[in-house]
Amino acid sequence: MGFNRKASLSHTVERNITDLIIDGYYQRGDKIPNEIELSKKFEVSRSTVREAIKTLASRNILEIRRGSGTFVCDKPGIAEDPLGFRFINDKIKLALDLLEIRLVLEPHIAEKAAERAGDEEIKGIVAQCGVVEELILSGGSYEEEDVLFHTKIAQAAKNAVIPTLIPVINSTIFLLMRVTNTALRKETILTHRAIAEAIQARNGESARNAMMEHIMYNQRFVEKLKTDREMDSSVISVLTGEM
Amino acid sequence: MGFNRKASLSHTVERNITDLIIDGYYQRGDKIPNEIELSKKFEVSRSTVREAIKTLASRNILEIRRGSGTFVCDKPGIAEDPLGFRFINDKIKLALDLLEIRLVLEPHIAEKAAERAGDEEIKGIVAQCGVVEELILSGGSYEEEDVLFHTKIAQAAKNAVIPTLIPVINSTIFLLMRVTNTALRKETILTHRAIAEAIQARNGESARNAMMEHIMYNQRFVEKLKTDREMDSSVISVLTGEM
Repeated sequence: MGFNRKASLSHTVERNITDLIIDGYYQRGDKIPNEIELSKKFEVSRSTVREAIKTLASRNILEIRRGSGTFVCDKPGIAEDPLGFRFINDKIKLALDLLEIRLVLEPHIAEKAAERAGDEEIKGIVAQCGVVEELILSGGSYEEEDVLFHTKIAQAAKNAVIPTLIPVINSTIFLLMRVTNTALRKETILTHRAIAEAIQARNGESARNAMMEHIMYNQRFVEKLKTDREMDSSVISVLTGEM
Repeated sequence: MGFNRKASLSHTVERNITDLIIDGYYQRGDKIPNEIELSKKFEVSRSTVREAIKTLASRNILEIRRGSGTFVCDKPGIAEDPLGFRFINDKIKLALDLLEIRLVLEPHIAEKAAERAGDEEIKGIVAQCGVVEELILSGGSYEEEDVLFHTKIAQAAKNAVIPTLIPVINSTIFLLMRVTNTALRKETILTHRAIAEAIQARNGESARNAMMEHIMYNQRFVEKLKTDREMDSSVISVLTGEM
């Protein structure tokens, strides 16, 4: 009984803290009060507060930084791998399925970005295009910056959900294929630039087409990988185990 | 030190259990061994195992059913509200943004379902269309069965990710608007039926168009809600607080 009562108290504290974040009382990135203050505020024991905070941390709502305190996450409530992709066994099919979704969603997003982006956002997209390009040319790993390029375009499309969805989809694709292939790097530079320039010119149709071309190239790449069983493992390594 | 060591041991147990699920050693819905057996298997204390199981349960990977044991979730790793929608404050804009995504994704999905569905899947879609229809006609709450109708279409489209994505998007829209409006109920019956019949006839273009019509109707409905500040609160109630 004691255990259940504590569990339900801790659940109440979880809900209270979550509601304070939803209501904007605590903002993203804010430091929240410490254990002692929260236990006074909610009139529960410190161990109940500690339990609630641990659960909220495991749900990516709070972040515990040892030595400096507890903070609201920048993207509260979004877990790593939120859609459980690592539990899908056939990783090549997963990559193709994700690319199918990108091919439907992202050309639309690029078109809307061309129509809706503010001047500062356009500067940001063009600059990010340059960051990816430099990394590719210097032979560096560019996956993260590439995802950010697509996320900036999604943000400019002014839909509150898409900037969350795009990294979830695109990061997974990158985790699936580690690309060192020169042809794909070159193609990425060319199609990224075409996308950024079309958005800069506020040409929606052109942005849509460039994005479509960009994703179709990736699609053909993974399809080739699927049929080509004797692929050169130095070119592409597919993580079949953990992601 | 003792605390950190235990935390890292428990983290290792979490990873081990997760890997066993990913590798298919434990399947979805399976009961996993009890605390004593797991503590022997991983050579750690029972409290370490308990901690790992609690964390995995909070991430919706395991489900603890009091009195009967611990089980692998049916959709492992997918949290309630995985994309953190409840942390987006403007709920009407959220609904419109989600409908924008549906309008891009779902017509494509309906088309693919018409092309790729197996005979049993088509029967299931038509039957589910009937279930929703009966609930609407009897004045019952049909939200859950409506989401299932769209999920069955997504499953028939043979993309492993879309059946996960559709409930995440559609359930949220339903949580945002509680619809008792007669016109929308009638429209839902008509457009659902058009979608199901087009898929049954394996007519991709027709399925695409019917889905587009269905979602655009919903879109106009929420847009009206946005502009119409003096709406009748008995017709639609928007949950502005918690979801």
